[in-house]
Amino acid sequence: MSLSSLDIDLYESEDPIWNPAMMAIPVPGIRKMVNMAASMEDVIHLSIGQPDLPAPENVVNATIEALRAGQTGYTMDAGLPELLESLAVYYSSRSQRKLTADNIMITTGATEAIYLALTAVSAPGRHFIVPDPAFMLYAPMIRMNGGEITEITTRAEKNHQLDPQEVIDAIQPNTHAIVLNSPSNPTGTVYPKETLEAILQEAAYRGIQVISDEVYDHLIYDGKEYPSALSCSTDLDNLMVVSSFSKTYSMAGMRIGWIIASQGAIKRLRRYHMFTTTVANTPCQWAGVAALHGSNDFIQNMLVEYTKRRDRLVELVEQTPHLTGYKPEGAFYLFPALPEGVNGTNVALRLLKETGVCTIPGETFGNSCSNAIRLSYSTSLGNIERAFERIIPWMEKQDFG
Amino acid sequence: MSLSSLDIDLYESEDPIWNPAMMAIPVPGIRKMVNMAASMEDVIHLSIGQPDLPAPENVVNATIEALRAGQTGYTMDAGLPELLESLAVYYSSRSQRKLTADNIMITTGATEAIYLALTAVSAPGRHFIVPDPAFMLYAPMIRMNGGEITEITTRAEKNHQLDPQEVIDAIQPNTHAIVLNSPSNPTGTVYPKETLEAILQEAAYRGIQVISDEVYDHLIYDGKEYPSALSCSTDLDNLMVVSSFSKTYSMAGMRIGWIIASQGAIKRLRRYHMFTTTVANTPCQWAGVAALHGSNDFIQNMLVEYTKRRDRLVELVEQTPHLTGYKPEGAFYLFPALPEGVNGTNVALRLLKETGVCTIPGETFGNSCSNAIRLSYSTSLGNIERAFERIIPWMEKQDFG
Repeated sequence: MSLSSLDIDLYESEDPIWNPAMMAIPVPGIRKMVNMAASMEDVIHLSIGQPDLPAPENVVNATIEALRAGQTGYTMDAGLPELLESLAVYYSSRSQRKLTADNIMITTGATEAIYLALTAVSAPGRHFIVPDPAFMLYAPMIRMNGGEITEITTRAEKNHQLDPQEVIDAIQPNTHAIVLNSPSNPTGTVYPKETLEAILQEAAYRGIQVISDEVYDHLIYDGKEYPSALSCSTDLDNLMVVSSFSKTYSMAGMRIGWIIASQGAIKRLRRYHMFTTTVANTPCQWAGVAALHGSNDFIQNMLVEYTKRRDRLVELVEQTPHLTGYKPEGAFYLFPALPEGVNGTNVALRLLKETGVCTIPGETFGNSCSNAIRLSYSTSLGNIERAFERIIPWMEKQDFG
Repeated sequence: MSLSSLDIDLYESEDPIWNPAMMAIPVPGIRKMVNMAASMEDVIHLSIGQPDLPAPENVVNATIEALRAGQTGYTMDAGLPELLESLAVYYSSRSQRKLTADNIMITTGATEAIYLALTAVSAPGRHFIVPDPAFMLYAPMIRMNGGEITEITTRAEKNHQLDPQEVIDAIQPNTHAIVLNSPSNPTGTVYPKETLEAILQEAAYRGIQVISDEVYDHLIYDGKEYPSALSCSTDLDNLMVVSSFSKTYSMAGMRIGWIIASQGAIKRLRRYHMFTTTVANTPCQWAGVAALHGSNDFIQNMLVEYTKRRDRLVELVEQTPHLTGYKPEGAFYLFPALPEGVNGTNVALRLLKETGVCTIPGETFGNSCSNAIRLSYSTSLGNIERAFERIIPWMEKQDFG
């Protein structure tokens, strides 16, 4: 793959201090937009990657109780035993399979879990399969350790669904892992059970790891049941599932995530985790225990609110010239396409400068989607309405022919 | 260097799932001892690596206030601006040099900061200089990314002081960085200003990075002033300093550390940090702001308490047959030597099994110190006394000839 597509800052890549592997880390497109927006007035953000609701009261109270009880020292390396046990019970029930505390490790958010999983399996000469577009961390993490990637393109016209046969056809003799992310950031697409089963079955047969990032697993609309890779796989030898409390309970700043895998994989990852962060935050692990034992009202109310926003956003995108939308079934993103050949980064930059609406350029999420922009509806209905009062007239004036 | 010295678990190293670089991660000696101790009754721990005092009240209260104020979302990638500013003011005053928020990044404890610094500069063909014994994370982090290490041995007979000329003589044309840790874990040794100045001056002249781990920088006894690498270096181009709140304010489980470096280095490390953990814990960053703005009484009282423990431990080690001690000037560790050729791991295991006193085998901290054990005095004076009531008679019975 060509590094030029990653928008490398040449000055830094030539600095002899740094490990050349650091060149695989691109300049983050989100950061550039948000920094520019920070210098402007009257910006409406459709760029937000965390929930805009406050964390539930029982979660906040549990953290406070833990602090008052002196829970400010290290936990065990795998995590707080009470949280590991609670997660084991919760996932055993949800995925209808037996999981124990030894199948789980608590991390500093899902990011550390993904970092550990991908960098622990990537190495020179190894091949990985990643959807495109995808969360912008996967590909650089793999490339940092020398792995090579085949990107499986998805399209707005097909609701950004992943074709499992395309994934299977891309498997090579040196394929080590397949990365899945459902619901997807940036597309909001939820993969059906059939897609997961087909990929997981083939991966198990070929001895390939599936690394499934399920951080949006509770943001599923229209009353659908969520197909987790955990429910679609017969065993755990070829599967690592990552999730966190960040999106489900508005706890992004508490940085509590986890990885679920075979006991052997967890044993190995625990050692690596000691080197990256030692352990996760102790009082906020108690917050997680409270979240799992609390009522589901917070999630239900959140879904009602996000469904309204999604439905309105889908309508507004339909009414917008030059944008091809679809109805996402999960997360809080929509990833509409501009006409083929249009530079989405230019459109996002001009939208911000000329209308004050901040979106994220599609190329942040992969090589196939430079004509797209990511819209987040983790903001009020009022903001979504006001944003499109600016976007629609602006788009009407554009001639992308 | 030979991997066999790292006590690799052969089953795991042969598992084809994992990146071969993971072989550089040893089985942690501390974990083995603590796990064995967990299955026993009436164990006295001289193995503890975090303060045994509760966190200060103002720190706990600030975290609670932040939680109540809804501070549960992400901060900026470099950290909470209020904490960055507070650290810049604090360090500018303490080190008598101008530092800005752009010279600092907040991390998930010092561990993440050290991980980022070392793995961002280590690469195949690069050479590093590390004291031996040293904190057990440095060498594997360097080796994971292909770097090679020269270990500079220190000795109990010389208070484990580092000879700066030995460090300078070990510099090779491909030397990329020198790792320093003062006060040292496991020795408690504080390097004098002259040692730091000699090494930093030579490193700057040769374009070599110095990575200075200063997490015990407030645990300095006998009223001495702490020589930080920040005060001993003329510029920041060749220096990265790591510290945290964990040891100074009993906040280990809150996982807030930082790295101080040139603005260019921080810019590069911020991108990498996005990939490992995204950002640090938000409510506990507010705890850090309170810690820096609070009174010094907590630290002063802690020093009074730890000084008593250290002085008593030094006396008890002097009274113990077969142990060569010294008077450590910082941290909360003493790293006495057994006679040359005695296997410290066997001694630590037998001490635990036969007396119920848990210490850490010296080989955990490097290749030169297999005849040592680490004693932590982060435990009550009563526990220290009781431990030696068991250790001294046991040692009297040993014949290591």
